[in-house]
Amino acid sequence: MSAPAHRITIDLEGRSYPILIGAGVLDDPTTYAALPRGGMAVIVTNETVAPLFAQRLVNALQGMYRSIELVTLPDGESFKDWTTLNLIFDSMLAAACDRNTTLFALGGGVVGDMTGFAAACYMRGVAYVQVPTTLLAQVDSSVGGKTAINHPRGKNMVGAFHQPQLVVSDTGVLATLPQREFVAGLAEVIKYGSIADNDFFVWCEGHVGDLLAREPQAIAHAIRRSCEIKAEVVGEDERESGRRAILNFGHTFGHAIETGLGYGEWLHGEAVGCGMAMAADLSAHAGLIPSAYAERVGALVARVGLPVRAPDLGIDRFVDLMKLDKKADAGAIRFIVLDAPGHASLRSVADSLVERVIAERVR
Amino acid sequence: MSAPAHRITIDLEGRSYPILIGAGVLDDPTTYAALPRGGMAVIVTNETVAPLFAQRLVNALQGMYRSIELVTLPDGESFKDWTTLNLIFDSMLAAACDRNTTLFALGGGVVGDMTGFAAACYMRGVAYVQVPTTLLAQVDSSVGGKTAINHPRGKNMVGAFHQPQLVVSDTGVLATLPQREFVAGLAEVIKYGSIADNDFFVWCEGHVGDLLAREPQAIAHAIRRSCEIKAEVVGEDERESGRRAILNFGHTFGHAIETGLGYGEWLHGEAVGCGMAMAADLSAHAGLIPSAYAERVGALVARVGLPVRAPDLGIDRFVDLMKLDKKADAGAIRFIVLDAPGHASLRSVADSLVERVIAERVR
Repeated sequence: MSAPAHRITIDLEGRSYPILIGAGVLDDPTTYAALPRGGMAVIVTNETVAPLFAQRLVNALQGMYRSIELVTLPDGESFKDWTTLNLIFDSMLAAACDRNTTLFALGGGVVGDMTGFAAACYMRGVAYVQVPTTLLAQVDSSVGGKTAINHPRGKNMVGAFHQPQLVVSDTGVLATLPQREFVAGLAEVIKYGSIADNDFFVWCEGHVGDLLAREPQAIAHAIRRSCEIKAEVVGEDERESGRRAILNFGHTFGHAIETGLGYGEWLHGEAVGCGMAMAADLSAHAGLIPSAYAERVGALVARVGLPVRAPDLGIDRFVDLMKLDKKADAGAIRFIVLDAPGHASLRSVADSLVERVIAERVR
Repeated sequence: MSAPAHRITIDLEGRSYPILIGAGVLDDPTTYAALPRGGMAVIVTNETVAPLFAQRLVNALQGMYRSIELVTLPDGESFKDWTTLNLIFDSMLAAACDRNTTLFALGGGVVGDMTGFAAACYMRGVAYVQVPTTLLAQVDSSVGGKTAINHPRGKNMVGAFHQPQLVVSDTGVLATLPQREFVAGLAEVIKYGSIADNDFFVWCEGHVGDLLAREPQAIAHAIRRSCEIKAEVVGEDERESGRRAILNFGHTFGHAIETGLGYGEWLHGEAVGCGMAMAADLSAHAGLIPSAYAERVGALVARVGLPVRAPDLGIDRFVDLMKLDKKADAGAIRFIVLDAPGHASLRSVADSLVERVIAERVR
């Protein structure tokens, strides 16, 4: 018998929606019972995910909608652009979808971001449901309502805040996730402990084996706690002017790695994992945390199988890439640093310390 | 000495912003005094408007911003698409605009819709100011926060609700507006009286000469009253599930004309003008208003110089085009009808009456 599903409620922007976490929630029709009925459903997925789970979702939704359309996008971050987004709009308009339509994002973060943005824009806004099929999407994009597509000059430059009606995080679907992608998702799990909950960080240290074995109850706990922490942080600051920025721990270094190598060379979670090790070092060099804690962050990142040595982009180029990052308002780089175990804040850090970290962490 | 500017305040979606109406408000630096300073400004305009007013707006904004970028789009509804929208994003990213950027929409409805949508999406939302340079934009798109681009399968299918910080409606800029476009704007003015304020409708009947002569105080009053009425209606129903629909009076017939002829053949205001005459006839045929009042609506439309005879699209095609309109939820056409002088509502109307109106109004 499987463990009962976790159910948590997210309250953001005056809207409230549930996240269901557990084995089999995708297939259970009661998961969707509170959604409005009688309109049209459009399931947006990709070529990789469609053969695995699309029919299961269609079966679970049977009888709820006038029609269920399936839109299958090409798979990959490189397709997270306007051209691919337009495939969703084309299908919806061809099917004469009206405002009473619910989009279902069945896939990882790219599918979630694009489907959410399509829902935000189609006829100026329709409902959507997230059905994340990667660990990264289950612990990250399922909370916060951020949607976007990429622009050739930068990631997520065109988007909207748009909250889903429901998030369905089935731990069972992770069984088919390639190990590299599963591990990339653990980067964000480690992040939540590091920035906001030292007890959870310690729990992660003690459950590396269970997590890597994809033990269902350990995974469900990690997803639940990650979503709860993200919701707490986002709830304090829904439009990212202040505290929400701590969720970008590791991301300034990480984005520089992703951009410097070209998107797709490293997975986002891999870049964030290495970026967290670097940001923890930076925090220690700045005297904010003991070196021993920075070493524990780097060690946990390494134990789950994420890289902790950065690619050699050249120190000057590495710094320039960080300044291009959108978190760099008006040219000055501010970093999310750890200022205590399980606590983070946004600070300006001397360039010399940043350069030292890069020099030390380059492989 | 020019008359003092009108200042009205719009309260929508928990945000409040002023509309300034009068001769010379565009050039007056005090118009912009309450806007946040120190960021970047991006003026979005088009090839027609840029040589007339762009330098004047740049002058008025001098000293407020770190930099002022100018983005000049091609002119016309046919460019209200993703490709043109991307010109705005390209310029903003090339200039490294951050979230602390204010967009200025300097132009007609197309520039306003695209700039507003760009502001809604750029980094998931930045501020914008409307500086409408057509009468239609001054009385219509300056209130309500609707932004959008067109899709090949339909107008305004991809967009967002995004309220501006400020609207600057300079009656002086209307002096250079071609007569055909000016008259098209009067269609919406007549609409507000017809649907929501019979006193204003009667005022319009009594001031046709002043309006057509572009007498500044008459124009300012017409803009002010139009914006006030639109704000009242939108305020009751910000996301267009009910009462806001009355603002589409004349638009179901009008969109069919625009789509049937191909966008750009008739101006939007011309199609709406003819559509209002048709919708008034429909209301009379349905027994909701006296025929004499429907005739007054048609007569006022004709007196300002708008068409009241519809193009011959064929009755079946005309009806099909209306069913494609996005106001036709689930295939049934509902119309905005007049149910009293100065009052409108949304009702289903028998197909036979619709066909009769088309037959009578086709030239």
